[in-house]
Amino acid sequence: MKQRQTIFDIDTRGQGFYEFSREIRRWCADQKLYCGLLTLFIRHTSASLIIQENADPDVQYDLNRFFGKLVPENPELYRHRCEGPDDMPAHIRSVLTSVQLSVPVVQGELALGIWQGVYLFEHRTAPQSRQVVGHLIGE
Amino acid sequence: MKQRQTIFDIDTRGQGFYEFSREIRRWCADQKLYCGLLTLFIRHTSASLIIQENADPDVQYDLNRFFGKLVPENPELYRHRCEGPDDMPAHIRSVLTSVQLSVPVVQGELALGIWQGVYLFEHRTAPQSRQVVGHLIGE
Amino acid sequence: MKQRQTIFDIDTRGQGFYEFSREIRRWCADQKLYCGLLTLFIRHTSASLIIQENADPDVQYDLNRFFGKLVPENPELYRHRCEGPDDMPAHIRSVLTSVQLSVPVVQGELALGIWQGVYLFEHRTAPQSRQVVGHLIGE
Repeated sequence: MKQRQTIFDIDTRGQGFYEFSREIRRWCADQKLYCGLLTLFIRHTSASLIIQENADPDVQYDLNRFFGKLVPENPELYRHRCEGPDDMPAHIRSVLTSVQLSVPVVQGELALGIWQGVYLFEHRTAPQSRQVVGHLIGE
Repeated sequence: MKQRQTIFDIDTRGQGFYEFSREIRRWCADQKLYCGLLTLFIRHTSASLIIQENADPDVQYDLNRFFGKLVPENPELYRHRCEGPDDMPAHIRSVLTSVQLSVPVVQGELALGIWQGVYLFEHRTAPQSRQVVGHLIGE
Repeated sequence: MKQRQTIFDIDTRGQGFYEFSREIRRWCADQKLYCGLLTLFIRHTSASLIIQENADPDVQYDLNRFFGKLVPENPELYRHRCEGPDDMPAHIRSVLTSVQLSVPVVQGELALGIWQGVYLFEHRTAPQSRQVVGHLIGE
């Protein structure tokens, strides 16, 4: 049994979805494990990891609009607002989504469904440098 | 250290909760590992995996009603609607819940609490054939 | 490759956030693994595990208020109410957050970001004794 670790560095430019499925697949392929488990962990509290449809960009538009309405950027709603009106909503959206994802590796391939892409979901409006830790175990 | 993998095939008949704790427990028992970690991963973006109370069916009724109100099936709210009024709400409900669950195996048993059942949470109205990948590592 | 397991016992005194990052770090350090994966699993359906900012207590205040509004404790909204007005909202808040978290161990340390703390998010108003299973694999 072997373990491999890496960091995926992702620069974001405002709220929205940043797919990095290709980078994940390439790194996993390089490790040459046939059976295993990949875990992704984001080291931040104002951005998330999600898996969603990678075909129609309208899905991302609608997700952004939904979260914008569910968790409004209205400073009157929050006490924690020293970092701007998008900060507390970012924390809440992070709690409503995921900080971590684990995906099995089956016969040398990530077991993602045909329409599934892996995204960083950025909740802050200003550009950010994000780190996602990758951990792979298997053989 | 050993690894085992399987696919749980689950046919759904409309929105709601499909428990498959028994199938998971049976498969895990067959692998005869005493200590380990089970990971379940659903290969779809319009259905989820959740753990919830398995005693009172009213819990499922209330969960369905809550998600129905939180993410309404009103096409005017969404751009992505080519697959029907339940499609974009299904994607949003998927993001608000979980695509993956990991449960430790302790002394040969899944460490589920006494009231915890594992469910596929179907968000589409039409019947679907769903695949959940199971990955077990341990010894 | 080694595995270690433990139980974190956490007594709660009403709704809110109970950080146990220090207990997790101490236990992990005692296992002396340099590279691995820690999984935390809560054995309940009315409390959650989340990772959030550990600096400003206002973040927790705002999170509590948000979930209080999103999932109101109004018995008229629910059928499942035999255990009190906070019971069904607790189940819903559990589904909207997480039952499990996995965090890589990198160079002997949990890969948490500098502002990330691990919390039990209690959804019941009465005091509870909660169990979180810890599973560590690595070498």
